[in-house]
Amino acid sequence: MMSEDPPRPPYFAVIFSSLRTESDNEGYGRAAERMMELAARQPGFLGVESARDDRGEGITVSYWRSLEDIRRWKLDAEHATAQRQGRERWYERYRLRIAQVTEEYSFARPKAGG
Amino acid sequence: MMSEDPPRPPYFAVIFSSLRTESDNEGYGRAAERMMELAARQPGFLGVESARDDRGEGITVSYWRSLEDIRRWKLDAEHATAQRQGRERWYERYRLRIAQVTEEYSFARPKAGG
Repeated sequence: MMSEDPPRPPYFAVIFSSLRTESDNEGYGRAAERMMELAARQPGFLGVESARDDRGEGITVSYWRSLEDIRRWKLDAEHATAQRQGRERWYERYRLRIAQVTEEYSFARPKAGG
Repeated sequence: MMSEDPPRPPYFAVIFSSLRTESDNEGYGRAAERMMELAARQPGFLGVESARDDRGEGITVSYWRSLEDIRRWKLDAEHATAQRQGRERWYERYRLRIAQVTEEYSFARPKAGG
């Protein structure tokens, strides 16, 4: 989910890679959906991409206009609660990186002709 | 797959997000495995994280010591062939971003005591 016309670099990324515990799938799913909704309303939010495979390994990358926008989202009260629950219940481990995107390329397959 | 003791930022990331076509799972799987092996032998390679979900959405983030290491890997002949096959067969779309990682945090669940 990126807007149709994403901004040009530079912008910022939060790369969140994690391994889920095997517990509380329902609570986790609810919180993950809620955090996506909330993030999308934050100032400076540009989009998010996410995948989790059947071993429980997942990567979510969210994109932001500035480091200040990222900091504000990190401190959001409801998000802070979810972060704490993540450490208590949902994640075996995670790594979070903040990065500045400097180049971007994209490819889309031409539609099959008719 | 990151080394046990990853380097301190700053280092660089290639964020590759893609949607697979539904064709040639076998060829794709073989090439993906081979590219992981090859990448791991390149100068400046620091690690890679990858997940693909059951909708075919995937994210692979590889980490590198410098932009020059990323450029060299992009131009590797066998990798260049795989990139071309990716556009011809394996991907509906992809987006590739190059980013400089400036901050990193990690969490690991304490082992259950015995």
